Amino acid sequence: MRVLILGGDGFCGWPTSLHLSARGHEVAIVDNGSRRHIDDELGAGSLTPIATLETRLAAWREISGRDIPAHDFTVGQDFDALLALLKDFRPAAIVHFAEQRAAPYSMKSARHKRYTVSNNVCATHDVLAAIVESGLDIHLAHLGTMGVYGYGSAGVSVPEGYLTVRVETAEGWATREILYPASPGSIYHLTKTQDALAFQFYARNDGLRITDLHQGIVWGAQTLETRADPRLINRFDYDGDYGTVLNRFLMQAAVGYPLTVHGAGGQTRAFINIQDTVRCVELALADAPQRGERVKVMNQMTECWRVRDLAQMVAGLTGAELTHLPNPRVEAEENDLMVDNGRLLGLGLRPIRLEDGLLLEIAEVARRYAHRADLSKIPSISCWNAERAAAAGAAQTTQAAE
Amino acid sequence: MRVLILGGDGFCGWPTSLHLSARGHEVAIVDNGSRRHIDDELGAGSLTPIATLETRLAAWREISGRDIPAHDFTVGQDFDALLALLKDFRPAAIVHFAEQRAAPYSMKSARHKRYTVSNNVCATHDVLAAIVESGLDIHLAHLGTMGVYGYGSAGVSVPEGYLTVRVETAEGWATREILYPASPGSIYHLTKTQDALAFQFYARNDGLRITDLHQGIVWGAQTLETRADPRLINRFDYDGDYGTVLNRFLMQAAVGYPLTVHGAGGQTRAFINIQDTVRCVELALADAPQRGERVKVMNQMTECWRVRDLAQMVAGLTGAELTHLPNPRVEAEENDLMVDNGRLLGLGLRPIRLEDGLLLEIAEVARRYAHRADLSKIPSISCWNAERAAAAGAAQTTQAAE
Repeated sequence: MRVLILGGDGFCGWPTSLHLSARGHEVAIVDNGSRRHIDDELGAGSLTPIATLETRLAAWREISGRDIPAHDFTVGQDFDALLALLKDFRPAAIVHFAEQRAAPYSMKSARHKRYTVSNNVCATHDVLAAIVESGLDIHLAHLGTMGVYGYGSAGVSVPEGYLTVRVETAEGWATREILYPASPGSIYHLTKTQDALAFQFYARNDGLRITDLHQGIVWGAQTLETRADPRLINRFDYDGDYGTVLNRFLMQAAVGYPLTVHGAGGQTRAFINIQDTVRCVELALADAPQRGERVKVMNQMTECWRVRDLAQMVAGLTGAELTHLPNPRVEAEENDLMVDNGRLLGLGLRPIRLEDGLLLEIAEVARRYAHRADLSKIPSISCWNAERAAAAGAAQTTQAAE
Repeated sequence: MRVLILGGDGFCGWPTSLHLSARGHEVAIVDNGSRRHIDDELGAGSLTPIATLETRLAAWREISGRDIPAHDFTVGQDFDALLALLKDFRPAAIVHFAEQRAAPYSMKSARHKRYTVSNNVCATHDVLAAIVESGLDIHLAHLGTMGVYGYGSAGVSVPEGYLTVRVETAEGWATREILYPASPGSIYHLTKTQDALAFQFYARNDGLRITDLHQGIVWGAQTLETRADPRLINRFDYDGDYGTVLNRFLMQAAVGYPLTVHGAGGQTRAFINIQDTVRCVELALADAPQRGERVKVMNQMTECWRVRDLAQMVAGLTGAELTHLPNPRVEAEENDLMVDNGRLLGLGLRPIRLEDGLLLEIAEVARRYAHRADLSKIPSISCWNAERAAAAGAAQTTQAAE
């Protein structure tokens, strides 16, 4: 199948592009290099030494014999380029990763909030409008987040996108299925909830076929394909903005830095390995909704962990110490979380368990590239509001005084 | 109180600015003239001869002795200008009308869809981010729409923003109050539902005080203040994009054009007179939520009518004929609608009833300015999707052949 990957140079987009290409799909990439520009802005690069997109694609051609053309324009701005590409390439599916994906980055300042909103909401809407305008029957698979549900599930599994509720009507209480009420925890998460409304509208109004993959926190960096050559290596972020919690712990352990737990670490989160991410996208493309069907939502995660339990697991494997920092986020300090993920399991996903994959990650990436780490980039300096900023400032002052 | 009106030169913004100024508030306006530029784009101006904003403000100064400073920049783009204005003017409240407000316009083409999304979502988010950045405790009152609820209420009144539902938990069925599940009927309505999520986030994360006024379809054009001088006259739109249904009927009756009912006219809608709109905004500003309170939603409407009943009422008053056209919208052909509007009534709103005000509108605006009408602008040529466009095209061909 012909598949267009938007954001195909990024952390999830790159291994997805290779995976689908390796499986025989005809893949093309759109990427404006925004993630690499943000590296420059933050002065914090990938722990792994990633090659340029050009070098990556040349290496892939050399190794696999397959060509992946890449197009450099901004989805959400260059609508004419996007529409022309759809008409020319005529993809059967689009996989949409072309959004700013870090919650802390989205909360750094007014500028970062504004960038995240306009970039993400306009990118998603442009893709939808371009599909309609092209007249082609393209399946759109979008990378969403478990975070749209808010955290905490009151002892009940978070369903896949829709919630059954009872509402009072003139004839008594009736059962309805509604989009799970959104409760975004950051500007980044907010944009994903805004996307969900756009999906709902375009599925109803134009019959677009849309899958929204509500992904957990991704851990790991390498997949079967990115391991095939050093020039194909995937990025691994460990900084306070883009480093996801488990990857930060792995790198901290590798360099002998105490594992930084925010608050008491009672937050429970959903996780998935990067290899499972690329497999899930493949499964989702093979199981597209029918025209006229509502948006298909799948929870793309494999297990839930409490942050302090993760930290303890990593500490146990590596001997690292734990340290608790003030939580920069506005969120509940403790929450339970259970998640339905029956759809992707039903399609054939065989999850890589954290307990099985962690040691490989530590050896393969974190220890191997530990010498490249800039320890000053580890702390999260992005605070969710003025109160949290004051608390973080006070903690720093106390530490300095001690 | 110092009040900043965003979009203060528009159909609702202008009379609101005058009303609040007349009531002794210190008013300032931001407007980039976008609504007037769209007049030029569509080649369809206001039925009433509206003066430039400069002339309007000079006239108001002359008549009332009050000054309303106006600032020309784009909310949603010129963030620095907005933030500087907040810090300088230090408003106690912002009234936010700075959004593209016509559903048919939002559906005209990919370009119009894209403009509506980026303009509306970015404008609203910039206002929120600027309030946080200013550090000021500013109450934001936003003009939303009844349309976010979707139409049809299953024999139960549409509540004011929140819906009580029962959900299944580990301990059995529990009661929850959720944001009323959004069901937008156009790109314009979609943006208002996306705004609602941003309001929810900023109220929770930053303690912003926000009121969302879910307004019905506005009818009438003049208020006490806009009647005070011909240079203060408000705009009256009758074209297929911006003309709201009742105002279109009034004008059609005045010029002897058959009243254009889309489909069977079984759509039930909520309505409010423009004089009540400005009064509602005043009441909302006087009843701002507390810091930490959730978003206050009020249904800003006074009565519900079925479109064909409205048409018949206007026909009865004027002798006009009715004609049925294919419905360009994707929507139910028939729906019931009942709406809770207890909050604004409780605050003192005394509604102007349609049956009392219609004749005045016909005499004061529609008949008086009928000679300015361009009849070619009356039909709505904006179709919601390819299927509706085909239906509209077929109907035109049939008419031409007859």
